[in-house]
Amino acid sequence: MKTIPLLKPLADDLERVERRMREALHPDYPQLADLLQSLLDSGGKRMRPALALLAGRLYARRIDREKLISLAAAVEMLHTATLVHDDLIDGALLRRGKTTLNARWNTGATVLAGDYLFALAASLAAATGNVRVMDIFAETLMTICSGELRQIFDRGELPRLTDEAAWAEALERYDRRIHAKTASLFAAATEAAAVLGGAPEEQTIALRDYGRFLGTGFQIIDDVLDFRGEEAVVGKPVGSDLREGIVTLPVLYFLRDHPDDTRIAQVVGGDGDDALVREVVAAIRESGAVERSLSRAREFITRAQETLAALPPGEARDLMHDLADYAIARDK
Amino acid sequence: MKTIPLLKPLADDLERVERRMREALHPDYPQLADLLQSLLDSGGKRMRPALALLAGRLYARRIDREKLISLAAAVEMLHTATLVHDDLIDGALLRRGKTTLNARWNTGATVLAGDYLFALAASLAAATGNVRVMDIFAETLMTICSGELRQIFDRGELPRLTDEAAWAEALERYDRRIHAKTASLFAAATEAAAVLGGAPEEQTIALRDYGRFLGTGFQIIDDVLDFRGEEAVVGKPVGSDLREGIVTLPVLYFLRDHPDDTRIAQVVGGDGDDALVREVVAAIRESGAVERSLSRAREFITRAQETLAALPPGEARDLMHDLADYAIARDK
Repeated sequence: MKTIPLLKPLADDLERVERRMREALHPDYPQLADLLQSLLDSGGKRMRPALALLAGRLYARRIDREKLISLAAAVEMLHTATLVHDDLIDGALLRRGKTTLNARWNTGATVLAGDYLFALAASLAAATGNVRVMDIFAETLMTICSGELRQIFDRGELPRLTDEAAWAEALERYDRRIHAKTASLFAAATEAAAVLGGAPEEQTIALRDYGRFLGTGFQIIDDVLDFRGEEAVVGKPVGSDLREGIVTLPVLYFLRDHPDDTRIAQVVGGDGDDALVREVVAAIRESGAVERSLSRAREFITRAQETLAALPPGEARDLMHDLADYAIARDK
Repeated sequence: MKTIPLLKPLADDLERVERRMREALHPDYPQLADLLQSLLDSGGKRMRPALALLAGRLYARRIDREKLISLAAAVEMLHTATLVHDDLIDGALLRRGKTTLNARWNTGATVLAGDYLFALAASLAAATGNVRVMDIFAETLMTICSGELRQIFDRGELPRLTDEAAWAEALERYDRRIHAKTASLFAAATEAAAVLGGAPEEQTIALRDYGRFLGTGFQIIDDVLDFRGEEAVVGKPVGSDLREGIVTLPVLYFLRDHPDDTRIAQVVGGDGDDALVREVVAAIRESGAVERSLSRAREFITRAQETLAALPPGEARDLMHDLADYAIARDK
């Protein structure tokens, strides 16, 4: 399993998670098996299973390691399932530099392949034998879907930042969206591991908060990379969100300072050509909006690190601290 | 809740299932709530929750009624979720005589609404507090998705019924498909209720078998109604499966007797106009293939009724017997 150097101490467990995910794919015909395998092959940094494993290590003496592996596999499988449907909805042809499922399959097959992965995730979650874990899973999937739906309804809409109240509302909407998109599953990974480990309630809450703050910071960085990143490194075109009509934090900061700039509305409304998108991306880069977004991400990362004080000290907790630093320093 | 007269003794419980499903819909914005409500409003006969309720009644003294209601709601919610994605995939504009979600929404929103309903189903299943129930759920969803995917890959393919071995294989493929499509969820409803009721293992197996045989007979009748039914009663055009390239049991019987009839291949391959579809439907109706299909459905219904002997006698068991008779006598 590919992951980041920092997570090397988890290599063995991550390898077992990978095997658990692949063993779970046992469809009764080869066409589907091949495609699902290739989906897993193009896997990302495995941040989510790593979070479950790290949180579980805090309770290593009490936790059933097999169940923890199932949980980590369930979290990553759920993530993979949501990506399949997301890419279909966005019409994205590339993910992590590789062709997406929807670029190769028709809509129906892609929808069903995603559904199949949801079922696999549910099955892996059920393998933890823990009803509260199942409940966390179901709630998280609801949060994710509800957020994605809202994103579709809001697509192309530009907030009018006329006063402080409007700004606060726009920021809150943004926060809610990235909670649904990323932070909720990060939080589910750490909280569910705490539940499996029989953690005391205040530590369970601290771990959920850690996941939530980390995920929020992580997603802000993702949104920043859409402006600042290198296309070859990030694996998708710069300004992708804007092209899709999605307003992220750097755009909000820019809009607050430039309420009369009509170019943003044009691009977000779907009327901008490639040259205009690049012009707008450059303007946002140069405006200081990216730096302000980074600084807000840093605040969440710091809060994530602060919650760690409530948890048992040791290597796992130290790694969680460093992982938060990595989340902000990464370039992809 | 609309249901069939036979199930009147379940009216109160079915009403509670309906409420449980509607309470579960608590999305944080009205656009989604309205649409999900309208989806539930256009609900069908509620066969699946009725099966869970009936099986649960066999163990009425031991079962937690609230959990049984959650189970029944979970089963129907899962069914509704699969219908949303099915209609999207088939491009169906009508279901039960009403416009489908995909006829009103775009692809992305429809995919996500289906996902949201899956999450709701998982959440309702988790409310049973029973890990084995969750496991049955996850496995059933996998079976359903895998079957639908196979249907997509097989679409437009006509089996060559050259000898008895080819016939046996074609029949087995058909049985596997309708198991995935219908019988698996019927079986999940009755088996999960047995689990919740703490039924002895042999009764749990008998209840699963009852659901499976009933569901198989039920789906064969559905496939027969596609040829024999009245458009105004069934709620969709006659010959819909054929138009979509799906080969059902009446077609298989017809093909066995008329291996040289090229019209079927033309329609299934997507090259037939409406007149040809009607001609083929009429030919199949007159060939005796419908009667043979009905007779095979009757065999499964009889097997379903035979499994009931292993279960505690009483009103619930009698209703399950009559429900099997209804499944074959219905005209929609």
